Amino acid sequence: MAAVRARCVLLTGSNRGIGLELVRQLLGGPQPPTHVFATCRDPEGPRGKELRDLASKHPNLVLVKLDVANPSAIVSAAKIVEGKLNGAGLNLLINNAGIFTPVSLETVDSEEMIRAYKTNAVGPLLMAQAFLPLLKKAAQDSREEGLSCNKAAIINISTLLGSIERTPESYFKPVISYRCSKAALNMLTRCQALTYGKAGILCVALHPGWVKTDMGTQEADLTVDTSVQGLLSVLPILSEKHSGMLLNWKGKTIPW
Amino acid sequence: MAAVRARCVLLTGSNRGIGLELVRQLLGGPQPPTHVFATCRDPEGPRGKELRDLASKHPNLVLVKLDVANPSAIVSAAKIVEGKLNGAGLNLLINNAGIFTPVSLETVDSEEMIRAYKTNAVGPLLMAQAFLPLLKKAAQDSREEGLSCNKAAIINISTLLGSIERTPESYFKPVISYRCSKAALNMLTRCQALTYGKAGILCVALHPGWVKTDMGTQEADLTVDTSVQGLLSVLPILSEKHSGMLLNWKGKTIPW
Repeated sequence: MAAVRARCVLLTGSNRGIGLELVRQLLGGPQPPTHVFATCRDPEGPRGKELRDLASKHPNLVLVKLDVANPSAIVSAAKIVEGKLNGAGLNLLINNAGIFTPVSLETVDSEEMIRAYKTNAVGPLLMAQAFLPLLKKAAQDSREEGLSCNKAAIINISTLLGSIERTPESYFKPVISYRCSKAALNMLTRCQALTYGKAGILCVALHPGWVKTDMGTQEADLTVDTSVQGLLSVLPILSEKHSGMLLNWKGKTIPW
Repeated sequence: MAAVRARCVLLTGSNRGIGLELVRQLLGGPQPPTHVFATCRDPEGPRGKELRDLASKHPNLVLVKLDVANPSAIVSAAKIVEGKLNGAGLNLLINNAGIFTPVSLETVDSEEMIRAYKTNAVGPLLMAQAFLPLLKKAAQDSREEGLSCNKAAIINISTLLGSIERTPESYFKPVISYRCSKAALNMLTRCQALTYGKAGILCVALHPGWVKTDMGTQEADLTVDTSVQGLLSVLPILSEKHSGMLLNWKGKTIPW
């Protein structure tokens, strides 16, 4: 199967779960990227240990401190990455950082609604704004026709739980703040595709499945390894016909 | 055509535009409600004049100060309304208050994203939480089978611009903060239908059309009178088969 050939990749929320496994499998592939920027809130702290261990073995892995709920931190991180890229563009931005709180309509409050929205929807919006010049640079420098993850792409890690259409079948988990923020992220993805597509940037939302991670719990039905293998096999097949859509880790479309 | 027969109705954002016209037409109908609670941020100020004029002619119209972006103000308003209802329930909650800022992906910032979300999505969530005991009371006191606006209902005024599916055809107006907040409101409506339906409460999102108001501008294609006539003719036909859906002012389903 073809692997994604994006040369420069940046991921958020990459110190654990799906983010960490994406970093691992990207680095371990047959043609690893020249730069993998793995961002998380505290790469120097105890929760960044696995990333630091990986960085000690992979000189193409660069750890960058970044909290996507902090707009000025996003701008600072973009400057750091621009400096490290030394004139090259960023091919692939994976907005993976997300938060999940098990609240229902009865228990949720305003603060939790806004906290989830900031990280899960506003963060990806600000990330795309800040990294847009580097994504455009990658698109301009590419000789490929059309849109692809090898050229320039924004991948928003979304969820089936953000599908309004399919809510009734998964409502045993109400997770209202998460669902609302992810429905907004899906809308954002569609708008990003319409705006950024003209600049040669593919924008897709991906559902990684229900994955055995801290967020997904051990009840989940997919291992992180299987989910990430799936996601990484979907990336190379994405083209303009998928831009602005929500797909699962097998590449199947999910209705809004 | 049948008119809605809800006895006690509460509306937010009712000092102008669609909200004010809803109040006017509800009061002017053949069987006006016994109580219309018209809420807005400043009923005593210059922007509340038209509401006060209406209240001077309609003793069943009660003005209540309420900013839906202020969680504690929502709780206070619910106590006031409970006192006025004197043991009766609230049949119909119309979450109409909304804000709209003409921002694109290039110009929007974190503050604007959160401001729109607070009023357009979190406000309706908190309103339903605060007024739930009164809505449940109305459902319990009703002898009607099934779900209806006459019995107990939450109507969230949403928009076609919140339809992710139909975004490409209306993207000449990007209004990103509005679109994302309304996609979240649509998700909220679906979740409310699943949670509150069991208590006998209908939950529907309605698109009023593009209406000539301060928000819609004079470019819009519908008069506020036509839009509100349409909305008020849709309310009486709503039943359990519409709960958790997005319909337009003619009763036609809009995809998510």
